[in-house]
Amino acid sequence: MASFGRLFSFSGNGFSLFNGVNESNGCPMPLTPHSSDNSLSSARALGLDFGAAETGPTNTIADVAGVSVGHHTLNEGNCRTGFTAILPHPGDLFREKLPAAVDVINGYGKSAGLIQVEELGSLETPVLLTNTFAVGTGVNALIRRAISQNSDIGRSTGTVNPVVLECNDGYLSDIQAMALREEHVVSALENASADFEQGSVGAGTGMSAFGFKGGIGTASRVLQYSGRKFTLGTLVLANFGRPGDLVLPDGRRPCPKEKGQIEERGSVIVVIATDVPLESRQLKRVAKRAGSGLARLGSFYGNGSGDIALAFSTACRLRHDEKSDFIARDILHEDKIDPLFLAVAQSTQEAVLNAMIASTAMRGRGRHKRPALRDWLLAR
Amino acid sequence: MASFGRLFSFSGNGFSLFNGVNESNGCPMPLTPHSSDNSLSSARALGLDFGAAETGPTNTIADVAGVSVGHHTLNEGNCRTGFTAILPHPGDLFREKLPAAVDVINGYGKSAGLIQVEELGSLETPVLLTNTFAVGTGVNALIRRAISQNSDIGRSTGTVNPVVLECNDGYLSDIQAMALREEHVVSALENASADFEQGSVGAGTGMSAFGFKGGIGTASRVLQYSGRKFTLGTLVLANFGRPGDLVLPDGRRPCPKEKGQIEERGSVIVVIATDVPLESRQLKRVAKRAGSGLARLGSFYGNGSGDIALAFSTACRLRHDEKSDFIARDILHEDKIDPLFLAVAQSTQEAVLNAMIASTAMRGRGRHKRPALRDWLLAR
Amino acid sequence: MASFGRLFSFSGNGFSLFNGVNESNGCPMPLTPHSSDNSLSSARALGLDFGAAETGPTNTIADVAGVSVGHHTLNEGNCRTGFTAILPHPGDLFREKLPAAVDVINGYGKSAGLIQVEELGSLETPVLLTNTFAVGTGVNALIRRAISQNSDIGRSTGTVNPVVLECNDGYLSDIQAMALREEHVVSALENASADFEQGSVGAGTGMSAFGFKGGIGTASRVLQYSGRKFTLGTLVLANFGRPGDLVLPDGRRPCPKEKGQIEERGSVIVVIATDVPLESRQLKRVAKRAGSGLARLGSFYGNGSGDIALAFSTACRLRHDEKSDFIARDILHEDKIDPLFLAVAQSTQEAVLNAMIASTAMRGRGRHKRPALRDWLLAR
Amino acid sequence: MASFGRLFSFSGNGFSLFNGVNESNGCPMPLTPHSSDNSLSSARALGLDFGAAETGPTNTIADVAGVSVGHHTLNEGNCRTGFTAILPHPGDLFREKLPAAVDVINGYGKSAGLIQVEELGSLETPVLLTNTFAVGTGVNALIRRAISQNSDIGRSTGTVNPVVLECNDGYLSDIQAMALREEHVVSALENASADFEQGSVGAGTGMSAFGFKGGIGTASRVLQYSGRKFTLGTLVLANFGRPGDLVLPDGRRPCPKEKGQIEERGSVIVVIATDVPLESRQLKRVAKRAGSGLARLGSFYGNGSGDIALAFSTACRLRHDEKSDFIARDILHEDKIDPLFLAVAQSTQEAVLNAMIASTAMRGRGRHKRPALRDWLLAR
Repeated sequence: MASFGRLFSFSGNGFSLFNGVNESNGCPMPLTPHSSDNSLSSARALGLDFGAAETGPTNTIADVAGVSVGHHTLNEGNCRTGFTAILPHPGDLFREKLPAAVDVINGYGKSAGLIQVEELGSLETPVLLTNTFAVGTGVNALIRRAISQNSDIGRSTGTVNPVVLECNDGYLSDIQAMALREEHVVSALENASADFEQGSVGAGTGMSAFGFKGGIGTASRVLQYSGRKFTLGTLVLANFGRPGDLVLPDGRRPCPKEKGQIEERGSVIVVIATDVPLESRQLKRVAKRAGSGLARLGSFYGNGSGDIALAFSTACRLRHDEKSDFIARDILHEDKIDPLFLAVAQSTQEAVLNAMIASTAMRGRGRHKRPALRDWLLAR
Repeated sequence: MASFGRLFSFSGNGFSLFNGVNESNGCPMPLTPHSSDNSLSSARALGLDFGAAETGPTNTIADVAGVSVGHHTLNEGNCRTGFTAILPHPGDLFREKLPAAVDVINGYGKSAGLIQVEELGSLETPVLLTNTFAVGTGVNALIRRAISQNSDIGRSTGTVNPVVLECNDGYLSDIQAMALREEHVVSALENASADFEQGSVGAGTGMSAFGFKGGIGTASRVLQYSGRKFTLGTLVLANFGRPGDLVLPDGRRPCPKEKGQIEERGSVIVVIATDVPLESRQLKRVAKRAGSGLARLGSFYGNGSGDIALAFSTACRLRHDEKSDFIARDILHEDKIDPLFLAVAQSTQEAVLNAMIASTAMRGRGRHKRPALRDWLLAR
Repeated sequence: MASFGRLFSFSGNGFSLFNGVNESNGCPMPLTPHSSDNSLSSARALGLDFGAAETGPTNTIADVAGVSVGHHTLNEGNCRTGFTAILPHPGDLFREKLPAAVDVINGYGKSAGLIQVEELGSLETPVLLTNTFAVGTGVNALIRRAISQNSDIGRSTGTVNPVVLECNDGYLSDIQAMALREEHVVSALENASADFEQGSVGAGTGMSAFGFKGGIGTASRVLQYSGRKFTLGTLVLANFGRPGDLVLPDGRRPCPKEKGQIEERGSVIVVIATDVPLESRQLKRVAKRAGSGLARLGSFYGNGSGDIALAFSTACRLRHDEKSDFIARDILHEDKIDPLFLAVAQSTQEAVLNAMIASTAMRGRGRHKRPALRDWLLAR
Repeated sequence: MASFGRLFSFSGNGFSLFNGVNESNGCPMPLTPHSSDNSLSSARALGLDFGAAETGPTNTIADVAGVSVGHHTLNEGNCRTGFTAILPHPGDLFREKLPAAVDVINGYGKSAGLIQVEELGSLETPVLLTNTFAVGTGVNALIRRAISQNSDIGRSTGTVNPVVLECNDGYLSDIQAMALREEHVVSALENASADFEQGSVGAGTGMSAFGFKGGIGTASRVLQYSGRKFTLGTLVLANFGRPGDLVLPDGRRPCPKEKGQIEERGSVIVVIATDVPLESRQLKRVAKRAGSGLARLGSFYGNGSGDIALAFSTACRLRHDEKSDFIARDILHEDKIDPLFLAVAQSTQEAVLNAMIASTAMRGRGRHKRPALRDWLLAR
């Protein structure tokens, strides 16, 4: 074992490396954790390496200026669920829409609002994440909020397109109870802040990933264009992956002892924000690279997993009441798009691991339980 | 009859209708109006000609065996709205799904459930039609109904994908009131019958089309394959088209005197049923021809109009609890698909005109009103 | 004039044409035929009415400044075929690309280059039209031309994406002969001019439509934005439609006495140019409305018909050697897009009729023949 | 270093593991090769591990019964290029088509024939792979071959849709020379066999991947349905990936010392064959999982890389001259599709590594050279 110790100490550059298979259970063997981090609640804190690319100051989606995130958590009785709201900018999204796009990686999902985002290339409400059976309630709440802020909706102007994305948390939570209410959406929206929790909070409360506890995770990358810094941030609702399929950046393959439900009925939502000016076609290309991030983790986009990526750019606002026929916009030259693609792949991979590592073990409905990836890592 | 005489006399504005084929040159001939119909509530009864193609016995979507339709109408105060439910077969759709597909003609819409229909090529709930702001309530109601019928949903099996399609009836109805409730969905489902009303009922209650009153309309066509008869039926929720753009099959272009709201904020939903055995890719091709039917009416798929077509085949049921790995299915040979395409184009065109002609003039929210196309036709 | 009198006399078959709007009720009025046109080689010259919308000065795609069109016609032996080249601007397209998009109305076709236009939203060669079996030769010729103009292609920079669109002219022409050569592409490109022929020329030489002779046709519309005039122009290669399905704007349904091949094995290509500044997603929406123009003519996008629309905007050039990371562009506000949609629907409809009316009757391979729509119209 | 030796010896289960970074050049450090394999021309022979899933007997696409592959290699002067033909069955594809589908992972590519495969869900020629500028010649050759076998094409029946997929080999080969001729296609087709070479042969001759020599590679997986064995086989034309991005299954990241061209101008084509009966929508889902296999190798689908996957099923033949209106087919139940998804992800990953490992180092145009991944592995 001593040699392994040396392998993972690597003082100076702190690489943590895969380290073989436990012959008794077929699972990869443990790692001694880094000790220099106190919180141990992020993938980096536990020594996972995501390469040299620079992250934003908080390594969250809120590193994109103006983006904030709020949760409402419902953890009572057999319910382990909630809402997470992503506010792309602090203003009224209906009045000032943002360019946006969607990539449906695997459409086994019930998310709302995607058809219009695809057609018009714009986003006009906050993005709401929740469980599969709370989509209707989320839709209603976003409509009521938009009306309360814009009395012309459905009267002298058109309607509004609420975007509500979902995963099925039914393994840990009583999803049949349909316990979430519209006031919980209001609460999530009001809680929005650039400083927000990860793990088993909000929509992430009852989610599972690769047989471990899943949830909300986030990461960011810094990009350079025209001599100044831009940011791309990713937030995931991680509820996908079969036990045993997870691959860490170092090649290790953690799998839980008790696999619980094995058939994939999960899903994963990836929300991507950037301040790089992009047209919606480009945002769609950017969103598509979320799939490569998921695959790096071992996903093959299982049949039962509704894997959806949504990307928006905060670089320009599309005014609902625009007086001009034309809008002057900067658009990234297509040849310069690779750094964004790479940033999505990397930050999606990292955000999922952050979601898992920020989550502690949980017991839920029907005595179902999910262990924490953090515990697996710390036990090595 | 006198009024019909005037209708076809060519005096004044010289319009003509077609009446089959002139045997000397093989071209369509002018039409003598139908006199045998008393109700005057369908396009054919008012003398409009849709060619020689055979319709089903009732010229409705219910000519496809097993399909039924139910309405719940909410016409009180400033509300002119409702739900219309299409039940593709009398059984439990969740247990016995149908092959299905969607074509998004113009995605300025808020319909729910389409992503999964596209991915999996199947339908597992009734199809619900309603106003834009009742989609969330429709989703919740369909989920609760599916759970009540299938207690394993979200527990020992996956979730369910409710399909709710919508148009904006906000010109005639107080859409901000969000007055529809889940019990109204139950009512629409319970009202389902092969014998159902058209016009300003259910989801069609407050809809507008080409400046006239719109609503629910339907039509069907009979097809011949392998020596036996098959049926394709279409039901539309017609709420699209700018005043003045409507073109009748005879070339006339009815437009209302008072145009009301001119900017298109409408939408149209086209639901297509057939008993021809098709795979979902073929159903998608079939659905796409709904667009040609709309264009025949003068539509150019305006920016603000969410135009969606959904098609399903009743020829085979996809069992949720299938024991076999493989399903034996008949599939139409691709070269034989043109009659279906033509049937969709024609029946969509006719269903929209039936929706308009079955509707009487209506006054709604804010003293807004829509005249009846029937009155325009009878006044000629 | 006498013949026109007969055309509009309503005797015998009672057809009518529209002539603008009745001021008392705002509805379209019957039309007195145009008498000022001698050539009788366009739909308008023969009295067909396309409403009040303003056309460009020549009513061709070349009304969009910078666009030119060249033909090479091969009409010898059993071959009735050729190339038509559309040059979107007079410069080097590879060095200065244009925003572009494609809509595949029905993908039963063999066109080349569409995948990349869809992904990158840009066009980097002239658009070449030809017969189905000359696509390979067209591809090779466009590559060789791009290399001759840009010696870095495939060496120090990437490759080039030739766009070649096709229809099957095999009813009138010996398509198996594969008689077109690369030098014919060069000839078509060198012939490019803002003043070009329509009908049975270039790629249109051997095409058929609705049982009549088809070919190349074009039309344009003028649009107003921000107080100045813009143009949208459409050019079609018309080779689609079953005999008897054609509908004229006035409702008449010309059909040839001898129907020849009835099963649809045709196709139609619609190329749309505009100087309105649009992003590629918007161009895709614009292209999609070509389908509504085809449907107005009676098409239901038959199974065997490869119906493709390609749209580009000349408002901004995307430089291959761009030094900046960002490009400053004007983009049309989405709410202002309807006039473009309508212009596409109308100009596609008109361009197809122009293609047919500019063509005289033709006899080709195997004594196959196609009558001229012009003769049908003049005989009324 | 001794401890590293132990790490990679693991006698008994032969795992080869990632082993840290060479501090002088930033690249991962070497591994001692397995010595038990003589050929050393496949990834498995060099000790790479792809998990416990069973491969077919030859671990090639030809494990799917009836599939054969032929090459024509052009390696002379500055040309390093060729054709590779995949024959999905030994019969006439035009007469007996196969269900097929395409997934465009990144559409920066010039492949031909995909639009029709997408629309009709079928394949009617062999699949040809080649360089970007030989697509036109490949198209012409496939047309001529189809005509020679089917004299009715373009006369009494429709045309034919040649499928030609491409990558840009211009780094090692003089792609401007356009040196491939139609007779080379004939040669590749005639060479087709279930026993075929991998590496720098046929279309793979001049390809590059991750800074190493790329080319043709293949792998297969065995699946169990209804108590019998089925096979999925994958063949790749690997010409993608930036130097340094490659990740081996064990986590190692080989990068070449000289990186050559760094900007990604590559592409990768993934052809998937299976004898599992699938409808084309399912084949599209299957094809989409090729992207997850590429991502496992470190790809993020770079902007300049045309990444295309095409899948076909040999389980049923769609007869061109079908007399019946309906075809009786078995179709896999959707819930059983995950093993196919996983097989694609795994076999794509393995096929790319086989392509690289079967290739020796090559020097080409302009003294450009590409080292062999095999040498990198053997040097460890």
